[in-house]
Amino acid sequence: MNILIISADNFEDSELLVPFYRFKEEGARVDIASLKRGKITGKHGYEVEANISLDEVEPDAYDALVLPGGKAPEAVRRSQRAIDIARRFFEKSKPVAAICHGPQTLITAGLLKGRYATCYKSVADEMKLAGALYEDREVVVDGNLVTSRMPQDLPAFMRETMKIIRKSGN
Amino acid sequence: MNILIISADNFEDSELLVPFYRFKEEGARVDIASLKRGKITGKHGYEVEANISLDEVEPDAYDALVLPGGKAPEAVRRSQRAIDIARRFFEKSKPVAAICHGPQTLITAGLLKGRYATCYKSVADEMKLAGALYEDREVVVDGNLVTSRMPQDLPAFMRETMKIIRKSGN
Repeated sequence: MNILIISADNFEDSELLVPFYRFKEEGARVDIASLKRGKITGKHGYEVEANISLDEVEPDAYDALVLPGGKAPEAVRRSQRAIDIARRFFEKSKPVAAICHGPQTLITAGLLKGRYATCYKSVADEMKLAGALYEDREVVVDGNLVTSRMPQDLPAFMRETMKIIRKSGN
Repeated sequence: MNILIISADNFEDSELLVPFYRFKEEGARVDIASLKRGKITGKHGYEVEANISLDEVEPDAYDALVLPGGKAPEAVRRSQRAIDIARRFFEKSKPVAAICHGPQTLITAGLLKGRYATCYKSVADEMKLAGALYEDREVVVDGNLVTSRMPQDLPAFMRETMKIIRKSGN
């Protein structure tokens, strides 16, 4: 199982660390990609190593894409490379899991039109404007897409994310 | 599956949140017990609700005990009630999982003599003095006891903790 997490400085710490450790518990290889390689720091001060830059990512090498929240997606969504990577996962119908502000990158990529999804409450308006079928639930699954609202939803988010990754054969 | 986490202020945030969310992903009921009921705050500022006080804990109602690290165990180990609870889990050979400074409570309880275990490096000396067979590994399993050293060990810690809980029939 090869997982790609895309984030940047000011990520919501638990929304990156909980999936990161959970995938590793499962024996997965996990790459953390950011605008450039090196340490990124969460809102609560946790540092993690972005071991690969977005430019170096080969999207087809991964089984799933995970987009944590916090303020990081504000930076990630401005990267054309991040947008292209997200689009590639959707083209291949590979699992994409986004939580809190994470779906902002998918909004910018134009990937949520007509898709059931959720997000942090302050993101709901732009999600609806992007044509998504917004629902205020702890987790929303629509095909390859899993979305959640906030850290407290992490148990449901990870349960459904693990399920669709297993279903997609990895 | 009923899980008891014992902690206090200044817990190591990821060492409490990662197990907490992981058990909930599994559908478990998780109680967080502290010296008294109410919010406890981690070193990185995360707040969680201690929904039960140590005095209210019925140890036999749980399938496993989890002891996160940080500075919290310094307070927890001074509680005779916490010591008694830990001893009860060992008497019943129920799973006990402790990480980082978490094993300090088991040291004070005199439960590590002759047991293979690990802990945060600054705790190693007192662990050896308590008669434990200390090993510097990401996870050490000895019967009902799972121990790890630090946050980066959480994937191995949770993998082995889930394994012994399942093995013990829950």
